[in-house]
Amino acid sequence: MVKRYLTVTSLNETLSLLYTGFTCTPSRERVPLLKSVGRVTAEPIFARYSVPEVHLAAMDGIAVVSKETRGASEQHPVTLEQAVRVNTGNVVPSRYDAVIMIEDVHIDHERFTIRKAAPPWQHVRPAGEDIGESEMALPSRHLIRPSDPGALAAYGITEVTVLTVRVGLIPTGSELVPHGDHPAPGQVVESNTVMAEAMLGTLGARCIRYPMVKDDPAQIRKTVQRAVAENDLVIISAGSSAGTKDYTAEVIAELGEVLIHGVAIKPGKPAIIGRIADKPIIGMPGYPLSALTVLREIVTPLLHRFGLPIPALGTVDARFTVSVSKDIGSDEFILCSLGNVGDRWVLSPLSRGAGVQMSAVRSNAYLKIPAGIEGYEAGKSVTATLTVSRTEAERALLITGSHDPLVDYLADLLQQKEIELHSTHVGSMGGILALKKNECHAAPVHLLAENGDYNIPYLKKYLPGEDLVLLCVAERQQGIVSKTGIGFDEIPAHQFINRQRGSGTRMLLDHELKLRGISPAVIRGYEREVTTHLAVALAVKSGEADAGLCVYSAAKALGLRFIPVASERYEIALRSGHLDDPRVSALCDTIVSPAFREILDRLGGYDTEETGVRRVLP
Amino acid sequence: MVKRYLTVTSLNETLSLLYTGFTCTPSRERVPLLKSVGRVTAEPIFARYSVPEVHLAAMDGIAVVSKETRGASEQHPVTLEQAVRVNTGNVVPSRYDAVIMIEDVHIDHERFTIRKAAPPWQHVRPAGEDIGESEMALPSRHLIRPSDPGALAAYGITEVTVLTVRVGLIPTGSELVPHGDHPAPGQVVESNTVMAEAMLGTLGARCIRYPMVKDDPAQIRKTVQRAVAENDLVIISAGSSAGTKDYTAEVIAELGEVLIHGVAIKPGKPAIIGRIADKPIIGMPGYPLSALTVLREIVTPLLHRFGLPIPALGTVDARFTVSVSKDIGSDEFILCSLGNVGDRWVLSPLSRGAGVQMSAVRSNAYLKIPAGIEGYEAGKSVTATLTVSRTEAERALLITGSHDPLVDYLADLLQQKEIELHSTHVGSMGGILALKKNECHAAPVHLLAENGDYNIPYLKKYLPGEDLVLLCVAERQQGIVSKTGIGFDEIPAHQFINRQRGSGTRMLLDHELKLRGISPAVIRGYEREVTTHLAVALAVKSGEADAGLCVYSAAKALGLRFIPVASERYEIALRSGHLDDPRVSALCDTIVSPAFREILDRLGGYDTEETGVRRVLP
Repeated sequence: MVKRYLTVTSLNETLSLLYTGFTCTPSRERVPLLKSVGRVTAEPIFARYSVPEVHLAAMDGIAVVSKETRGASEQHPVTLEQAVRVNTGNVVPSRYDAVIMIEDVHIDHERFTIRKAAPPWQHVRPAGEDIGESEMALPSRHLIRPSDPGALAAYGITEVTVLTVRVGLIPTGSELVPHGDHPAPGQVVESNTVMAEAMLGTLGARCIRYPMVKDDPAQIRKTVQRAVAENDLVIISAGSSAGTKDYTAEVIAELGEVLIHGVAIKPGKPAIIGRIADKPIIGMPGYPLSALTVLREIVTPLLHRFGLPIPALGTVDARFTVSVSKDIGSDEFILCSLGNVGDRWVLSPLSRGAGVQMSAVRSNAYLKIPAGIEGYEAGKSVTATLTVSRTEAERALLITGSHDPLVDYLADLLQQKEIELHSTHVGSMGGILALKKNECHAAPVHLLAENGDYNIPYLKKYLPGEDLVLLCVAERQQGIVSKTGIGFDEIPAHQFINRQRGSGTRMLLDHELKLRGISPAVIRGYEREVTTHLAVALAVKSGEADAGLCVYSAAKALGLRFIPVASERYEIALRSGHLDDPRVSALCDTIVSPAFREILDRLGGYDTEETGVRRVLP
Repeated sequence: MVKRYLTVTSLNETLSLLYTGFTCTPSRERVPLLKSVGRVTAEPIFARYSVPEVHLAAMDGIAVVSKETRGASEQHPVTLEQAVRVNTGNVVPSRYDAVIMIEDVHIDHERFTIRKAAPPWQHVRPAGEDIGESEMALPSRHLIRPSDPGALAAYGITEVTVLTVRVGLIPTGSELVPHGDHPAPGQVVESNTVMAEAMLGTLGARCIRYPMVKDDPAQIRKTVQRAVAENDLVIISAGSSAGTKDYTAEVIAELGEVLIHGVAIKPGKPAIIGRIADKPIIGMPGYPLSALTVLREIVTPLLHRFGLPIPALGTVDARFTVSVSKDIGSDEFILCSLGNVGDRWVLSPLSRGAGVQMSAVRSNAYLKIPAGIEGYEAGKSVTATLTVSRTEAERALLITGSHDPLVDYLADLLQQKEIELHSTHVGSMGGILALKKNECHAAPVHLLAENGDYNIPYLKKYLPGEDLVLLCVAERQQGIVSKTGIGFDEIPAHQFINRQRGSGTRMLLDHELKLRGISPAVIRGYEREVTTHLAVALAVKSGEADAGLCVYSAAKALGLRFIPVASERYEIALRSGHLDDPRVSALCDTIVSPAFREILDRLGGYDTEETGVRRVLP
């Protein structure tokens, strides 16, 4: 039987149930001082003794009885009856009540002469100046900062009791292999509890990752019972949907109760909220970005309810670059690349596939589109939530257009200048349109025009009269990738893998087919589109296709054969007005750098003779 | 011989020498994935295999050959020849090219009938959808975020090579005892390398704290040689000035060269920059806040130069509440309490003593007053640098006025509501003036007027006609603290310790002396002022004084005797307009809470009958 449809609960209702339905008492743990930064105190911390405990000299000099110094002046030097040499930090013996700096003392055979009176307590650090015995150094619930452990050490503290939430993480799924193993086809690396531990541990939770459990209700039940006994909160990874091998809800219902099955969020809908022994049990969906969303939107606020401090994420108002439609019933969270172009923030969505973890890796912000809304039009002004610091977001360089593996290497080199390259692969035409709308800093393009020139005819057509610069990255080789050395003319005899419409590579294919009078209709797989050179090569390597058109470096990376078809000018189109932007100028500098040229040589298939050549429009 | 005067170098020159004078090559270390959050990659990370490696079903259903499904409709169901049951995540065998959701399939004796055609690649997660084999998952110099380890685990990565800077920390000083030991008089807990490790470790440095070294040049030399060999950067704690027992500069000069001795910053002037074996050597002054300043202003930018990412600190424009004068030749860094009062930020300096670590603990911001400026007038508009997040700073509740130990407990309780109480002890009169100038949210006061009433006559005089609320915290007992049970009339026969002018306790003393016809002139120690009740009790406990006037709770905390003198109304004065401020309302709620009343009972000397009573002005 298939129990497919979940009754979804809104995110707000889910959170309010978590806030009100559980006592959420945090745990405590003792940590050494040096492990306490970023944690919160579970109780006030008191100084064990005064600092300093006795009066200390604040200067190198002599300790004196201030009364004896009265009347001393240039005209009437006073030779002191009682005085003793002290260095900074030395105890001022109790009969003295002031210190005179050594520079102001004339010393002759152990006798001290002064020419200026010392007021009482001059240059003395009084006992308790810093803190008094029994005084509260830190209140409870204080977020310990990097400078705190030094002070606490001085006050006699060696360990701190901090709040934590003990979180039990249970990975379920017969297809799982431990992280580090190479999964066989159909197996999956158990990475979601790794992500959970990294995310929740950073917030101060103490995570236990239990051994992986197969899709077997009895085994899952046993592990859940143990985890509930040992933790304040239990997260069961995967099996939370309503399919034939999804046992999470069933097990929670047996041991306690299922409060919510299905939350109106995307990704993350098949989440479960349950209760066993008054402890919250979360059923976390198996798709990594569903898991990420549940961790960020449900578990993180729950940890806050337990008393852990949650850093506030910044927000910026930005222009959303594409139209998206969504399920009206759900809050949808879209991972995005955010950058400041000219004088405004621009927000571009990354792949929304719940299995595409690279969207999380590449994103620096996300957009929440609330339930009740069916989608946004391109150009809409939205509020994005930053997942990095604002300073880091300000370093983002947005590159939109044609894909080439070399872009990743540009990103790598730019990081050393603290520029974060975010590239969106929408093909050359998409890049030109993004540049036109001022939604990127630079557009990599390689569009062959009727006149045999690259790129300029298209820019003239789509951005007429605008001041543009084309910077040549390289002349790159495109060719047919295969295992067996298939040439262009042999394509119709084999299964093909294509690139998406609007990409320069697709246009090159169509151009070459037309030249040779081959009809697309005879090519098996012409309709099968992927979006990167590497994806073409991968399809060939996996056997899904026999041949495809891609750059040499992609074929080389996967050890495949390559028959050249054409060499094309891969250029980066920029607005001249952006050349002064430090991010753009760093990009230009990097393209002409010896380090980048070396990388191009290593990757192979790039002719660097034209690298760095600028062409200017109009 | 005393080599007292250092030739100071400006902070900017110091930093530019560090930036240009050293190669600053970082070290690398391998860390397990779960320890990698917050670190930066030392090299790009590539996916070890494609994810997924083969086409997977994206839904529970059946894998089909899409061609076979053509023409299927409600009117014309199609029973499939080839199809196989798959669950989400299962491999789609190579002869199939689409998946149909189980809900859309009629199953009868292992035969599948459908009523809708499946386009090719429907509900299939293609191989490499997330990432392709050999693709760059992360560039070098990427700051690893909490969500990254999950993705890396999925891509076959178990360890990450991250950048670090190996920092050797050498504590010097014959007076030092290890942290955890109770220092004897004149001894000091070695806490500065603890602070350094906490601060620099948080930034990604790998610190080694060497055993403490006595003030002995030979021993120091040996440890420095070892530390230079084992690290990228060496910090010698203390001994950096030019006193008779300061050997740091001498040792650096012997083993390499001293580049700078004396930096024009305060605190932190006696810093040293040296070079041994092309490695930077920092002489860090011994006063904790001098050390803190050197770590923050010199060592932190140096770690950035090595390639470690340094979080940018936020800034806010604020009104500076007091006048300060400073040495014109130095950049001075003043630790402050910052809070938002009404519609502006208010910045109050904390104690500027270089030994007062509590100033760092209590501060949430600092002010840099640059060289060339002699000081600021009260009320000046300045730019403060936040040492906490802006969100945390927005939670600051500023309390300015009379000191009482109970204020620390209010702070402790308020933290549970995420309100951060910052109290400045300037005495009751200072509190009234701060309230008048809108420089605090609340002013604790206990001023006895001629008419026998507390506080109201003063508020009427200094804030005439303003809408104010006085909230009674407690009636508290003031009395004479001593070891032997000294009564008020016996004060003239003993050594006394006084409170500062403007404090309510000082005014109470003067009032009581006048009542009894005792002249202040006959009281030994009348001129010796401290600023808190606990400081009075500490002076008595340490034997510096025989008696003082303070609240009962301070005497009790130190186990001293107490002879009551008067009971006084300790109230908190607020502006009525601030009652809606969530921080102020939380304060009012906390004062009347049972938890606070319990604390007052435990501390002792507080009559809570009037607690929570409000008096309104005008």
